[in-house]
Amino acid sequence: MLLMEKLYITYNQIHNTVKGLTEEIRESGFDPDLMVAIGTGGFIPARMVKTFINMPIITVGIAYYDLDDNQMDHPVITQWLDQPEKQIKGKKVLLVDEVDDTRATIGFCLDELMKHEPAEIAVLVIHNKNKAKKHEIPSYIKHYFVGKNFEDPWICYPWDAEDTEEQDRLALQS
Amino acid sequence: MLLMEKLYITYNQIHNTVKGLTEEIRESGFDPDLMVAIGTGGFIPARMVKTFINMPIITVGIAYYDLDDNQMDHPVITQWLDQPEKQIKGKKVLLVDEVDDTRATIGFCLDELMKHEPAEIAVLVIHNKNKAKKHEIPSYIKHYFVGKNFEDPWICYPWDAEDTEEQDRLALQS
Repeated sequence: MLLMEKLYITYNQIHNTVKGLTEEIRESGFDPDLMVAIGTGGFIPARMVKTFINMPIITVGIAYYDLDDNQMDHPVITQWLDQPEKQIKGKKVLLVDEVDDTRATIGFCLDELMKHEPAEIAVLVIHNKNKAKKHEIPSYIKHYFVGKNFEDPWICYPWDAEDTEEQDRLALQS
Repeated sequence: MLLMEKLYITYNQIHNTVKGLTEEIRESGFDPDLMVAIGTGGFIPARMVKTFINMPIITVGIAYYDLDDNQMDHPVITQWLDQPEKQIKGKKVLLVDEVDDTRATIGFCLDELMKHEPAEIAVLVIHNKNKAKKHEIPSYIKHYFVGKNFEDPWICYPWDAEDTEEQDRLALQS
């Protein structure tokens, strides 16, 4: 029997991790023009980031199901930029997601965003798992902001909780 | 001197309000195909809704500042649908925002979305303020889901908090 470690996280913990990350961004000298939030995991982190460093948020929808609910073995775009020339070209972009797991989604987004010729892209994730990755971090990425590093637990995010009190109780024990 | 009532809300309170709203949606018989989240206030509520009723989230960016940071007196689109024919036409859409204040943003989005010929649109907001509105709720809206109604307090959302502990403490007193 394989037991997988489950790690419960509260909203406040993520908010505080984001706050720390935005201090790191300021100290790094990277001064983003906008965020690109990877949906749907990046929506909540990106909105939290905006509190500490105000900038527009553009979202992209990436899923392993297409809009007709067919399961895919590679990332599919469910929403993309509507005006990439205006939104991305020549801009400093902060790409935001909740977790760097296999890095497949983040790698895919980086490849796609680079086609629109940003001035620079940096990445922010709340959590990184120290595991085999499907993409290298490309050499053009000078800033990769990670809130916390873990081995490979099953991370239980607060937005997925059926019961917030139970989530808080389990997070205290995590 | 005018004193405005400030109402502090925690993440867990919003999560629980969303949970109740999704029960109302199920009971109403409205069975949405997708959400359209109004950015950036609708991002966090929409992601919470998805936990209880799983469906894709498409986002639209509406602001009173354009992408070049000029202040506008009317809503401007900072991001729109990239494939509205595929995303909206003939679909049952749940439009999500955090608050119905003057209803200017929601009214604007409804007008714009209707151009793409959805089968139906319903609206979900976490909070409604009982105040003068700039738009009527159009007659084609059969379902308008409101988590809580208030008079006209200044609502302090958890994602805007500098300090989560202070936010929780003030929310207990609100």
